[in-house]
Formats: sequence, C-alpha cells, structure tokens
Amino acid sequence: MDKIRVAIVGYGNIGRFSLEAVEAADDMVCAGVVRRSGSADGIAELASYKVVSDIRELGRVDVAILATPSRKVRENAEKYLAMGISTVDSFDIHTEICELRAALAPIAEANGAVSVISAGWDPGSDSVVRSLMQGLAPKGISYTNFGPGRSMGHSVAAKAVPGVKDALSVTIPVGTGLHRRMVYVELETGADAAAVAAAIKADPYFSHDETHVIPVDSVDALNDMGHGVNLVRKGVSGATHNQLLEFNMKINNPALTGQVLVMAARAAVRQRPGCYTMIEIPVIDYLAGERETLIRQLV
Amino acid sequence: MDKIRVAIVGYGNIGRFSLEAVEAADDMVCAGVVRRSGSADGIAELASYKVVSDIRELGRVDVAILATPSRKVRENAEKYLAMGISTVDSFDIHTEICELRAALAPIAEANGAVSVISAGWDPGSDSVVRSLMQGLAPKGISYTNFGPGRSMGHSVAAKAVPGVKDALSVTIPVGTGLHRRMVYVELETGADAAAVAAAIKADPYFSHDETHVIPVDSVDALNDMGHGVNLVRKGVSGATHNQLLEFNMKINNPALTGQVLVMAARAAVRQRPGCYTMIEIPVIDYLAGERETLIRQLV
Repeated sequence: MDKIRVAIVGYGNIGRFSLEAVEAADDMVCAGVVRRSGSADGIAELASYKVVSDIRELGRVDVAILATPSRKVRENAEKYLAMGISTVDSFDIHTEICELRAALAPIAEANGAVSVISAGWDPGSDSVVRSLMQGLAPKGISYTNFGPGRSMGHSVAAKAVPGVKDALSVTIPVGTGLHRRMVYVELETGADAAAVAAAIKADPYFSHDETHVIPVDSVDALNDMGHGVNLVRKGVSGATHNQLLEFNMKINNPALTGQVLVMAARAAVRQRPGCYTMIEIPVIDYLAGERETLIRQLV
Repeated sequence: MDKIRVAIVGYGNIGRFSLEAVEAADDMVCAGVVRRSGSADGIAELASYKVVSDIRELGRVDVAILATPSRKVRENAEKYLAMGISTVDSFDIHTEICELRAALAPIAEANGAVSVISAGWDPGSDSVVRSLMQGLAPKGISYTNFGPGRSMGHSVAAKAVPGVKDALSVTIPVGTGLHRRMVYVELETGADAAAVAAAIKADPYFSHDETHVIPVDSVDALNDMGHGVNLVRKGVSGATHNQLLEFNMKINNPALTGQVLVMAARAAVRQRPGCYTMIEIPVIDYLAGERETLIRQLV
C-alpha cells in the first residue's frame, strides 16, 4: 500500500516529537517540514528532510500535522484544507472546539479533505476514554485530574508578571478535578519576591486554585516533560450504583501528543471529507495494520 | 425524536440488567421480551411488558439485545438480521469473533440491518481502551488482568467434575495477564475432596493456572456479581519509552454488560448496514444526546 505522506508544520517540541512518531510508523513517510524560515537552521535531525516555507514545495502531501500553537491552528487548517490537504491538530482551547469544528467542516467538505481537531491527549485520547466512561455509567460524576506536570499556559502567565525572568507552573492533582499550582520563578535582579507572589496569585490563571510561588535560581534546571492524568468516574450502569472506572497515564507530554497526532493523521485518510473530533472516529481507524488482524488481536 | 424500540431476547442475568439499562435510557423503550416459554413466568418486573416466544409479536423492533449464551448468538443473530432487525450481543469467545463477524456481515447488509457483536466489557469496552492504548504506544506490551470476580466458564467446568454439586471459580489477577483460580466447591455426599481437587486441576480450564480448590458448605453463600479489570500498557510513543497507561474498573459484572449492550443498541441505529465490533464504531455513537452538546461536554 502507498505510504501516507505527512508534512509537519512548525518545529517546536510537538513538531519534533511528531516527526519521531512519523518515523516510527511503517505506513507513513515524512514529506517534509514547513517552517517560517524555510530552513533547517542547523537542526541536525532535519538534515535529511526537505524544509520549506510553503507546503506546495513538498509535492504530494496527504496530511499536514499542525504542530503550531493553538491560536494558529484555524488559520493554518483553513489554508491547507482549501488546498485539499487534510490536517490534524492538537487545538487545546476546550471552550472553542465546537466553533473550530464548525468553521473547518465546510472547507474540508468542499475540498475533499479531512480535518481531525483537538487530537492531543486532553483534549484527544482522554476525550475518547471520558466518552466511553460516560456510556458505561451514564449517571455519575467524572473527574479529570491532571499532573504532576508542567502547565504551559500557567507558566506563560506567571512569566508575564513584572519581575519574573522565567517561570514554571507545575500542576498537582488534589482530586475531584481540583489542582494545586506550584509556581517556580526566577526573579529579575531587585524584584520583590512577595510582590511577585501576590501578583501571580491574583492572576485569573491562578486566583481560583491553591497556588504556591517559590523563587529558584534556575527554572531551566527544573524542566521535565513528564505529565500525567487520572480520569475517574463513579456512576450508575442501568440501576446499579457504585460502578468504579479509572484511567491513568504517566507520560512524556509532547511525545504522547506527537503520537496522537500521528494516529489522527492515519485516521484522517480513512474518513469521509469533513471535520472530526477524536470521539467521532472509530478507534480502529487510528491503528496501523490490517483490519481483521487488529480485531483478532485487540477485541 | 422517535425512541429506539428494543427487544430483549433471553431473560437471565444479562437480560434482566439489560432491561434496567433500557429503562434508564431516555431515548429507548422496551418493545418486549422474547423467551422460549413466551411467558413472564411470574417474574415481577416483567408484568408490565409483553413477553412472547416470537419477536414478530412485538410489532416494530429496531434492535434485539441478544441476552443469550454466546453459543446461541450466531443462530439468533442470523434469524433476526434476516428479518431486518438489528442485533447486539456480548459474544465472548475471543477466538471466534472474526468468524462471527464474517458470518453476520452479509446477512446484515442484505437486510439493511446492523449487528454489533462482542459488546460486553471484555470483549467490548475494554477492547476500545486496549486499541486506544495500542495507538498511544504502538510498541510495548499490554496486559489485561481480570478480577477478582467469578468466571462463569471456569465455574461451569468445575461443576462438571464428578462429585461436585456446585462450584464457584473466582479469578484473581496476579499481574502480567496471569491469573490464580480460587475454586470453591460444594461436594456431593461421599465425594473425595482430594480426588475432586485433582480432577479440577487437571482440567484444561485450570491446568495452566495456579489453582486452589476449597470445599465449602454453600457455594450460593459466596456468590457476588462484582468483577474488575486492570488493563496496563507500558510502551513507546514515537521514540520515547516508558509511557505508562492503565485502565481500572471495579464493577457489577452483568450490570455493566447490560449497559454496554444498551450503548451498542444505540450505536446500531446510527451505523450503515453491516457487522461491527465495538472498536469499529465512533465512541460518540454509543452516547445519548445531541452531538454538539456531547462534543462540548466530553472532548
């Protein structure tokens, strides 16, 4: 079978790990990498790939993995879908997912392409588990507990506070969907630690959570890409209460995101034109291999 | 919207819990129950339902839940699919699932019906999680650890041993997909406990596992419908090792099976004619409610 030709758009952490996941997939080949600079800029592992600023320079591309910040997803997806190139992304602004889906669906349909959106681990693979749990116990409460792991959004918010040179906000699960924020800050010379702590705690990103601000000499020395989730549901199947369901992960965060993007890219070539979240796609479509063999091994 | 009219075929444990799950589902109504006797036989909760021996007496039926033993599934599914009635079952003989799927698919397609097979919790919802985990970490090992909980197949095998009046085989997970069998036996008067233990341990159902045979006064006094699973995978996402994934359940066994059958019945009316295992259906199709609302809540 013809291999799926995948382009990677953007080459930060997610782009890098997506490339590794494409390289590890027997049914895919990397058609090249799209960067604003149009150049590998000396990045060693890109030496063997075409690096371009315009995807059209890559020849046939079946799917573009959008490894760009969430805020750039819509613009890029619209552009590539209009060219008939399918797209996958890990858009993670939960409140805007339906809007993105509604915007991309008609473009995908009109151009015979597929867009799989919000295909990271949360939203993404966690969403599949959350939905399954909802079905298994339709009445009840689910809690998604994240961490321990770095929150990019919170780290950026802390870093934006005056007097902060660098910041790392670690999300600590305290159960029932609540989280503690451990914020490690590298202060500018002369900054007042107490004032910085107060400003961070007053920020809307932190004001609703228990937040601890800890000055450190080096934020870089603390950085680790590990993350985790504990997804629990206690609920009712039919008329039977106390059904206990739980899903746990301890994972390298961008590596899992890259892998999910590759799963979504594979599924994209198997769907009819349109825009999909991960819960709208049969899970078998994410997997490499022959259908009957997968059923025999996994069902 | 018109409610999904569901018939329940067979009224053992699974049938009873399936009825409760249908009653709890706002989008469904129970069209009636099919039993060989064609009668409620004094079962209190069936008083308000039509109980018949031939499904055609129930008027319109969209989906028949086959709550019969696995060995009866194919015969029943073929019969109802040929009438254009969709079917769902919890067929649990792992090695024969592909064969069943191949047998039912053409009948379903020819009659505009849908068959969702092996829709229990394992095979079934666990299969969805297993497949997802396989995608998240394509290289690695998955272990499915069952229990503690009663194994029906093992209990029946133990009960068939001469000298055994009643038996309960409890599956105990010992990790890495291996299981201990705790077999509680009520002996016939005069039976030799040592001989019974030896015969059970020699049975192919038990000979590969650590098995303990314990004589008790009453097997009935030990019966409990709780069960569980611990599904783990440690593997590689892209080039990143040590990705740790885990799914746990502690559940009432037939209640969960009944609920999964109801999920499958809902999904059946949303698929194109054919035969499907659960991993071949988008998880959103198992859920009641409006599509956009579900995406907003669960993705």
